[in-house]
Amino acid sequence: METDFVQWLLARIPADSRLEVPPGDDAAVLRPPAMRRTVVTVDMLMDGVDFRLGPDCSPEQIGHKALGVSLSDLAAMGSRPEAAVVAVALPRSGGETIARGLHAGLATLAARHDVTLAGGDTNAWDGPLVISTTLIGSVPPGRAWRRDGGRPGDLILVTGAFGGSLLGRHLAVEPRCREALEIAHRFTVHAAIDCSDGLSLDLGRMMAASGTCGIVRLADLPIHPDAVRMAADDGRSPLDHALTDGEDFELILAMPPESARALVAAAGTPPFELPIRIIGEVEAGSGLVGIDSQGRRSPLEPRGYLHAFDS
Amino acid sequence: METDFVQWLLARIPADSRLEVPPGDDAAVLRPPAMRRTVVTVDMLMDGVDFRLGPDCSPEQIGHKALGVSLSDLAAMGSRPEAAVVAVALPRSGGETIARGLHAGLATLAARHDVTLAGGDTNAWDGPLVISTTLIGSVPPGRAWRRDGGRPGDLILVTGAFGGSLLGRHLAVEPRCREALEIAHRFTVHAAIDCSDGLSLDLGRMMAASGTCGIVRLADLPIHPDAVRMAADDGRSPLDHALTDGEDFELILAMPPESARALVAAAGTPPFELPIRIIGEVEAGSGLVGIDSQGRRSPLEPRGYLHAFDS
Repeated sequence: METDFVQWLLARIPADSRLEVPPGDDAAVLRPPAMRRTVVTVDMLMDGVDFRLGPDCSPEQIGHKALGVSLSDLAAMGSRPEAAVVAVALPRSGGETIARGLHAGLATLAARHDVTLAGGDTNAWDGPLVISTTLIGSVPPGRAWRRDGGRPGDLILVTGAFGGSLLGRHLAVEPRCREALEIAHRFTVHAAIDCSDGLSLDLGRMMAASGTCGIVRLADLPIHPDAVRMAADDGRSPLDHALTDGEDFELILAMPPESARALVAAAGTPPFELPIRIIGEVEAGSGLVGIDSQGRRSPLEPRGYLHAFDS
Repeated sequence: METDFVQWLLARIPADSRLEVPPGDDAAVLRPPAMRRTVVTVDMLMDGVDFRLGPDCSPEQIGHKALGVSLSDLAAMGSRPEAAVVAVALPRSGGETIARGLHAGLATLAARHDVTLAGGDTNAWDGPLVISTTLIGSVPPGRAWRRDGGRPGDLILVTGAFGGSLLGRHLAVEPRCREALEIAHRFTVHAAIDCSDGLSLDLGRMMAASGTCGIVRLADLPIHPDAVRMAADDGRSPLDHALTDGEDFELILAMPPESARALVAAAGTPPFELPIRIIGEVEAGSGLVGIDSQGRRSPLEPRGYLHAFDS
């Protein structure tokens, strides 16, 4: 990686006990915490796909989102964030202003989650803005949450509420890192995933990885007020928005019933100030099944955002 | 990160003792080697800037280059590569074919350097191909090579030869990982950098970081035959190509004289089969000075590839 073009950025990186070598070399040298695994996630966001740089979406917001989606991935692994490196392709025109804004957004969220911005790669081109964030975290051996650990009999829980994220939450990502670490510390979690592409799609992925069937009590789904607002405009139901919109960046958990009920009982008090609800249970089988308020079962198709491309 | 679109890729990832969790979760969980620092580098390559996808440049070659430039960064840190995560923005049209080619190029080079492909993020859009590679390595505490360690009295050495990389070597990157580890094991290195943007530019960066002046004996520069070929076409001198073309991905080292001479004596025999030459020395001061064959000194301007953008 090359950092000579971001001296202004490097000058803003404080001395950090995680870094053995000052920022600006060919690579960052991190002191990993002892006796822990290294957890790594990478996400790439592109202008026109994940955001639209312009009057309604500032570089600061994009920097926040870029780190936020990666933090959400680490939360879904029950892991502690440590350090990030960021690569950008900046539009030649206005690139420096964009870079400063990106850094401001990244640095503010990094500080809130005690993440070291360890380095990056800054490029310019005639194309749209692209930002790729690699986040490195840590977790004790054998303690990473996985998406393939769901078991029949588990209850399915979610943090927060779903749907309508395009009204603003898709940018103002609030990754559930602290909540995840606290849950990992106090409760038993069999499987976890974060909701990036759609509640039904991401829950479907967890069930597919676990080799199980997800039963969803539709009346129990926490529907975000934004889903109701969007539904009023577009004629789709708030429930449909909640199940398919994605970019909620909430946690979806499969937990043994006793732990699940204890967590729900603790929700609403620090550090679980956000709502946590049981929305269904795990059964043997495959796919998703919705149960309506009359108790009728019907197949629930996993839907959400897919990156379509052809061969 | 999201990997549901690369199941074909994940299926090709063998069981790996570095991975605690199978590929395909929200993040990769790595078993870091004990008692070593974690070294991280990220590089982003864009179509039209770092390569031109087309008849003369296949997805396989781009995958090779993407990992190769990051491996070269780790070599410049005297560090051992361990694992990589890769994020791509694929053109919607032909995206799957491109993804398969990228993976083939990545996997072949990864296998040669014992690098685990641990995960990634696959996206599609209507823009040009973008690939971002994050490479994670390791090094014993306090042993990472840095670019700021050059001292007056050190000799300046380079591996290989320089100039004219656009004739093919800019794609067929041969990162000097094995050589770097062997040098780190057997010799004393005060400072190191890899030549990505231009020999004079990268040496200038090392001297600036070290707070020293680099004296370059121009007649001693190893000039690549490709530089001579390009010079015959464009009227610039082979020396100018060697000093400024970049993408040679050779090592530039500052070493105490005794170690430098011992390394040069060992060059040409395994594992140092590539040429290693002394091209100058480090003095107190700043900037670069060229010495011609008559012993005349003149300032040498650091030149090479810069990512230009405006505010």
